[in-house]
Amino acid sequence: MENGSIKKQSNQQLQAMVNHNLSSTTTTAAADLTIRGIMTSLRENINKNDPRPTVHLGHGDPSTFLPFRTATVAEDAVVDALRTGNYNCYSTTAGILPARRAVADYLNRDLPYKLSPDDVYMTLGCSQAIEVTLAVLARPGANILMPRPGYPFYEIHASRNNNIEARHFDLLPEEGWEVDLDAVEALADENTVAIVIINPGNPCGNVFSYQHLQKIAETARKLGIVVIADEVYDHLAFGSTPYVPMGVFGSIVPVITLGSISKRWIVPGWRLGWLVTSDPNGILQKSGIVDSIKDCLEIACRPVTFIQGAVPRILEKTNGEFFSNIIGILREAAEICYDGIQEIPFITCPVKAQGAIFVMVKLNVSLLEDIKDDMEFSVKLAKEESVLVLPGIAVGMRNWLRITIAADSATLEDALERIKAFCHRHAKRQ
Amino acid sequence: MENGSIKKQSNQQLQAMVNHNLSSTTTTAAADLTIRGIMTSLRENINKNDPRPTVHLGHGDPSTFLPFRTATVAEDAVVDALRTGNYNCYSTTAGILPARRAVADYLNRDLPYKLSPDDVYMTLGCSQAIEVTLAVLARPGANILMPRPGYPFYEIHASRNNNIEARHFDLLPEEGWEVDLDAVEALADENTVAIVIINPGNPCGNVFSYQHLQKIAETARKLGIVVIADEVYDHLAFGSTPYVPMGVFGSIVPVITLGSISKRWIVPGWRLGWLVTSDPNGILQKSGIVDSIKDCLEIACRPVTFIQGAVPRILEKTNGEFFSNIIGILREAAEICYDGIQEIPFITCPVKAQGAIFVMVKLNVSLLEDIKDDMEFSVKLAKEESVLVLPGIAVGMRNWLRITIAADSATLEDALERIKAFCHRHAKRQ
Repeated sequence: MENGSIKKQSNQQLQAMVNHNLSSTTTTAAADLTIRGIMTSLRENINKNDPRPTVHLGHGDPSTFLPFRTATVAEDAVVDALRTGNYNCYSTTAGILPARRAVADYLNRDLPYKLSPDDVYMTLGCSQAIEVTLAVLARPGANILMPRPGYPFYEIHASRNNNIEARHFDLLPEEGWEVDLDAVEALADENTVAIVIINPGNPCGNVFSYQHLQKIAETARKLGIVVIADEVYDHLAFGSTPYVPMGVFGSIVPVITLGSISKRWIVPGWRLGWLVTSDPNGILQKSGIVDSIKDCLEIACRPVTFIQGAVPRILEKTNGEFFSNIIGILREAAEICYDGIQEIPFITCPVKAQGAIFVMVKLNVSLLEDIKDDMEFSVKLAKEESVLVLPGIAVGMRNWLRITIAADSATLEDALERIKAFCHRHAKRQ
Repeated sequence: MENGSIKKQSNQQLQAMVNHNLSSTTTTAAADLTIRGIMTSLRENINKNDPRPTVHLGHGDPSTFLPFRTATVAEDAVVDALRTGNYNCYSTTAGILPARRAVADYLNRDLPYKLSPDDVYMTLGCSQAIEVTLAVLARPGANILMPRPGYPFYEIHASRNNNIEARHFDLLPEEGWEVDLDAVEALADENTVAIVIINPGNPCGNVFSYQHLQKIAETARKLGIVVIADEVYDHLAFGSTPYVPMGVFGSIVPVITLGSISKRWIVPGWRLGWLVTSDPNGILQKSGIVDSIKDCLEIACRPVTFIQGAVPRILEKTNGEFFSNIIGILREAAEICYDGIQEIPFITCPVKAQGAIFVMVKLNVSLLEDIKDDMEFSVKLAKEESVLVLPGIAVGMRNWLRITIAADSATLEDALERIKAFCHRHAKRQ
């Protein structure tokens, strides 16, 4: 009797607590906002009786496709670091010095000034670097300029955890997905603290030119804001525009560079990234942002110590052949996708992928019979063809699709054939 | 001229942003609150000209001492998982199924009911499990009951990130560091959502009996609150009281179990832990807390995938000899510390360590000449004797010290001799 009553009370108190939680944070579950969550729910539509293999062209993880195996030297470096037994301990707050020094050296190859290891903070992949950056820049009323289409992780962490308003400027497909700089200037006000630039581009697969990056830097300087340069796809450029890190313009405007070995080395599961203050004038130091970064990391989880221990060898000893092989595969994949999409009248690709591992394609729903938008397209495509692509709404572009090109040729060709058959099957009767 | 003015504006805006940040979060830097931060600043006092080795008895990381090398099977499991190439991908949100199943099986050995893999969430060490638990239980006005002395990470994350009030109940040295249950009842009100229990104990090195854990569970049930059972030191019990997981009482009260391989396998740098809902009545599920956990993890960083891939073999195949060897070393270390402290008249140890890797000792500052408190004791000890111990104030107990016992015998004996010499040198002239 007494126990029953206690249990009831217990349940009620828990219920009240959680009801409150659910209403006070946000009504949209995180799984409905993240790419991972959306892909998980799309996957549930796959017909298990389809004998064909499911083709995942929805996520940013090429590591599951055969040609994309990381470099042997990277695996060896991790194994050897682990086997020393010297890296089972906790990491220091900013990350261990040899790792930070190696990242500084790696980035210095492309910079007109020298970063020191003290400019580098090791993070849990690029994700934690994003989290820390947003937390450090947060203040009541603050807004950050973010690209549309973009990477929704920024929006979620800005709004959910930091009460930062995301203001969106367009990337212009007719300009090769360049930033609409006029829109940037029009959006900014005295509460704007930063602009996010993702280069090479997710989701557009574009690569910004030196000249365009310089214009972005000058615009940010004019507005008095920091540039958050998301370079998680650094060096994955296979078109005519070479990759240039934003840090090159660090003397024009303070740059917070976010990077990782996840994409270039195809090891997103290793959770090894970095946050770097690319700021030769020391503005971030003088203004206290560096101290805020340190403060934020003091109570944060650190990347695995033995993987940090492997970073110097990974960054210094991976041979050019590994990289050029990957670039070659991606270049071919970009061609296959571009050509294949040309043959599907219901979707158009304004710009061939030149970097990262994606391409954005526009969906012409007016030509389709029973598909009202990109989400329905993706759901039905999963159900009928066992092909997964990301609805553009997930990256801020309704009635577009983000297609991952990082797969082997045969898989891509197969997937494009299935998409074509799917579109023809759903075509409006003329 | 124009550039100069832009730069000035830029600086001003950044400065305003950061000034705001610094004042709006908290005036105390995280480094002054965390054990890591305090140890870092203590280390700066070490006299570099002291030819003797520095002895670190301040942190919770035994992996740097020679006898504490992890099991070969654990290293092999990680290497083999990495070498398959199957675990370079991103992890699923809750962690990969084989790892979750292995954790459920591991915990089920000691439970009167069966956990399923769906009760298990893989986390970045125990730290992320704490972060997620506090985030999930947060609501305006909420308070959580926490032990004093305790582990400051709880307080920092409760107050800084979640606006939860920490209310402290005492652990009673005269009762072998048992929970003051009367105080628990007196502290709780309708806004109390949980109680934190760390067993085996950090910082006290105690182990709660089956009977005492049951009383805690019954008290929590009466109060209608969740038990957060921090079992990061699980199975590290070497006294007369056997280790019992709190989950044993999950049918009395819902328990959120937090664990890790960090301590038992001596690999804190691997960042592999878990959060488990030990709740056979499904109260956490029904009340929505399980959904909140999933929601929270959806946008969180996941533990390294290949380390997750190694978890089944680590948990299933580590032989008893490895564990009994560690327990034997810790038991001997506890004796050495207890006996050594007995010979130092200025500090007293009320309870010999029986679990985890620490012992709490009381400092009698009235007997010391020029040392006003535990912080000054620790600073001067570092400076004069190159021995690092944690001032009790860091764990909520002024004029106590937390001493890590997880070191080899020779190191411990040497450190105790130095502490003794230090105390005699600073003794008040009678």
